[in-house]
Amino acid sequence: MATNRLRWGHCILSDFRKTKSMFYLPEGVIYLDGNSLGPLPKAAQAYVSRAIQDEWGEMLIRAWNDAHWMELSTGVGDRIGSLIGAEKGHVVMGDTLSIKVYQALASALEMRRDRKVILTDNGNFPSDLYMAQGLVKSLDQGHEIRCVNPENVMDNIDESVAVMMLTEVDYRTGRKHDMLALTEKARSCDVVTVWDLAHSAGAVPVDVAAAKVDFAVGCTYKYLNGGPGSPAFIYVAPAHACTVRPALSGWLGHEAPFNFDLDYRPGTGIERMRVGTPPVIALKILESALDIWDQVKMADVRKKSITLSNLFIAEIEARCPDLHLASPRSSDQRGSQVSFEFKNGYAAMRACIDRGVIGDYRAPDIMRFGFTPLYIDEEDVMAAVDVIEDVITNRRWDAPEYQIRARVT
Amino acid sequence: MATNRLRWGHCILSDFRKTKSMFYLPEGVIYLDGNSLGPLPKAAQAYVSRAIQDEWGEMLIRAWNDAHWMELSTGVGDRIGSLIGAEKGHVVMGDTLSIKVYQALASALEMRRDRKVILTDNGNFPSDLYMAQGLVKSLDQGHEIRCVNPENVMDNIDESVAVMMLTEVDYRTGRKHDMLALTEKARSCDVVTVWDLAHSAGAVPVDVAAAKVDFAVGCTYKYLNGGPGSPAFIYVAPAHACTVRPALSGWLGHEAPFNFDLDYRPGTGIERMRVGTPPVIALKILESALDIWDQVKMADVRKKSITLSNLFIAEIEARCPDLHLASPRSSDQRGSQVSFEFKNGYAAMRACIDRGVIGDYRAPDIMRFGFTPLYIDEEDVMAAVDVIEDVITNRRWDAPEYQIRARVT
Repeated sequence: MATNRLRWGHCILSDFRKTKSMFYLPEGVIYLDGNSLGPLPKAAQAYVSRAIQDEWGEMLIRAWNDAHWMELSTGVGDRIGSLIGAEKGHVVMGDTLSIKVYQALASALEMRRDRKVILTDNGNFPSDLYMAQGLVKSLDQGHEIRCVNPENVMDNIDESVAVMMLTEVDYRTGRKHDMLALTEKARSCDVVTVWDLAHSAGAVPVDVAAAKVDFAVGCTYKYLNGGPGSPAFIYVAPAHACTVRPALSGWLGHEAPFNFDLDYRPGTGIERMRVGTPPVIALKILESALDIWDQVKMADVRKKSITLSNLFIAEIEARCPDLHLASPRSSDQRGSQVSFEFKNGYAAMRACIDRGVIGDYRAPDIMRFGFTPLYIDEEDVMAAVDVIEDVITNRRWDAPEYQIRARVT
Repeated sequence: MATNRLRWGHCILSDFRKTKSMFYLPEGVIYLDGNSLGPLPKAAQAYVSRAIQDEWGEMLIRAWNDAHWMELSTGVGDRIGSLIGAEKGHVVMGDTLSIKVYQALASALEMRRDRKVILTDNGNFPSDLYMAQGLVKSLDQGHEIRCVNPENVMDNIDESVAVMMLTEVDYRTGRKHDMLALTEKARSCDVVTVWDLAHSAGAVPVDVAAAKVDFAVGCTYKYLNGGPGSPAFIYVAPAHACTVRPALSGWLGHEAPFNFDLDYRPGTGIERMRVGTPPVIALKILESALDIWDQVKMADVRKKSITLSNLFIAEIEARCPDLHLASPRSSDQRGSQVSFEFKNGYAAMRACIDRGVIGDYRAPDIMRFGFTPLYIDEEDVMAAVDVIEDVITNRRWDAPEYQIRARVT
C-alpha cells in the first residue's frame, strides 16, 4: 500500500517535470507571475505556423469550413469547461473577460427584473465593477451596486438581491471565497450568480455544475497560459442556456448566421453567447496551452500549489520578518498566489525582477507571487526566497533606479 | 507631360507588383474573396515569431512595458486611422466589430436622449442590426429601429432621429452610400452618425474627418488583411472624444487602470473606448499587414480597383449572359466588390472554387467577387473570367457535388 502510494506520488511528480519541459522558460528567471501572464508553451509556435501557413495561407476563406475554424470557439470552450467542472457544450470562447462580465450580468439582471440590487465586493477585480457601473448607467432602471467587504457577502444575500457577482479568488491577496456555500445561499434566495474565475481556472479545482452557478466567466492568459490578450470564456448553466436573452446579440450567436436575416433569433444553447468573428490565431495558441493541461489532474495541481505556497510562506516569514503575509494563512481560503505587504514593495519587486525573480506589485504595498505547479517546483521556490531575502535584508530595493515608477501589469 | 504621366503610371503599377509579392498566394488560386478574408502577408510569420518568442517567451510579463504591448491598441489604431482620414489619436483597436457597433451606438444614443429613433437600412450588415436590437431591448427606453431601404435613408433623416447607423458599402452588392451627403444632412438635423466601414477601410478612400462623422467602426480581416478574427477599430470624432460616456467601461479605458480604484473614471480621449486586455498577437499580425498598406496611396488603390472591377463587369457581361449585375453599374456608387445574380449561384461558386477562382456566395443568389489591387491584377481578372465562363457556359455547376450546401463564410 505504502509502495503504491509512493509510486503514485512519483507519477505525479514526473508529470510536473514533463509539463515544465513543455514551457519555454528563459534562462536565469524564476517566474512567479503566471497569475498575471502565463509563460509560453513551446508548442505555440508550431500551432501558430500551422494556422497561419497551412490554414489561412493555403485555404484562405475555405479554412472556416475546411480547418473547422467556425467550431473553435465551442471546441476550445469544452476543453476549458473540463477544467472548471462545466457540463459539455456549455462554455464558449470569445471577446475579453470584461465583455463576458457585461454579457453575463446583463443577461442575469433580466432574469430578475423585479429586483434591483447587484451584490458584489470590494475584492472583485475593478474591471468587473466598472463594467457593472457602465451597464447600470446605460440601463437607467434604478439598479444599485451593493459593494461590501468580502467577509460580509454572505450576510448580504437576501431576497432584495437580483444578481450576486463575485470573483472567486481575490486578485490582490489570493483570498478565496467559498463558492459552494455562497452560491447555495444565493440560490435559496433566488439570486442569480455570476462568478468570475480569472484567478480560479487552472489555479484551484472549480466545479460550476456541482456548485450550481448560473454564469461563470474567466480569462485564459493567467493560469491557463493562453498568451497576452487570449480570449475569454463564458459558462451558462444548462437550465438557462436555451432561455437566456443575449444582450450582446451578435451574428455568430444567431440561430442561422449565414442566412443573414434582418432579425435576431438566438442560437441554440451556449452558441447564443457568441458575438462576433472568433479570434482564430489566439484560439490556436490557447490550444497549445491546453495540451499541457491534458497531462495533469486539477486535484494534483492544487495539492502541489498548496505545498509550494506553504513552503514559500514559511521560508519568507522565517527569513524576511519585514514582510507581512497579506494572504489568508489557511490554504483552504487561498487561491494559488501568495501576497506579502511591504511598505517598499514597489521598489523591492523591481529589485527582485532585476535579479531574475519575477512576481508583481499591486498598489499600495502588495508584493504578489503566483505558484503554478505546471512549471514551478520546490527548487524554484527556494531559489526565489534566496533572492527575496537578499533584496530585503541587504536593502537592495533602496537604490535610485527602483524608485521610479513604471507601469507594471 | 505625357512622359511624366507615364512614368507616374509606371510607378503605381510597380508598387502593386511589389505589394502583390508581399502576400502569400497559393499556387493555382485567383483570390477574389479578400472582401471577406484577406490573404496572408508573408511577413506575418516573422512578426508572430518575434512577438511569441522574443517578447512573450523572453520578457514574459515585462513585455507589457518593455515591448510596448500596452500602446499597441492606439499605435495600430493610428495606422488604421491614416487609411480612413481620422485625426491622429482618435482610433483605437480592440474587440470585434459587433462589440464596436454596440459601443458606438450605446454612446451615441446617450448623446440624444430626447430622441428615440435609430435610422438604419436593410443593406446594413445583419450583425449591426442584431446588436442594435439587443441594445434597444436591454435599454427598454422605447427606442425604435427604423430600417428603410438604402435609397430612402436620405429622405428619412429628420429631427426625430437620434442616431443614423449605416454601413457605407453593402456587403452583398457593393452599393456605396454617399457618406458625405448623408452625414451632412444628419448633422443639419442634429443626428449622431455611426458609420460601419467594414467594406470601406482599405477598399475605398474614406475621410471621416472631412465628412465630420461622429463614430466610425470597422473590422480589419477583410481588405486590411489582418487575419481571421483580427481586432476591430473604433473612431470617435475629436468633438466627442473627451465627453462621450463609454457604455462598455472596462479597466483599460479607465483614467488610471493600474490604480485599481473601485470607481470608473473614463480615460482621456479615445483611450476610454478601450475595454479589456488587448489581443497582442493578433495586433502584431495586423502590423505586418499594415506595412503593405504603407507602400500605396489609397487614391491609387481606388483607381486600380475601379479599373479591375469595370474590366470584370465588361468581360462577364460579354461572355456570361446568364449572370446579371447586382452591383451598381456606376463605379462612383460601388465599393471594391462586384456581385452578380445567378439562380444557381451557390453551385456555380462551388464549381469556380474547385477550379481555383475563389469568390463567395451570399443568399439567395449572389455570386460575390472582391477586387483588391494589392494582390489582384488585370491578368488575374482575365484568368478568373475564363474559369467563370467555363463554369457557366458548360454548366459545370450542374454536378451533384456542388448541390450540397455547406456553410460558406
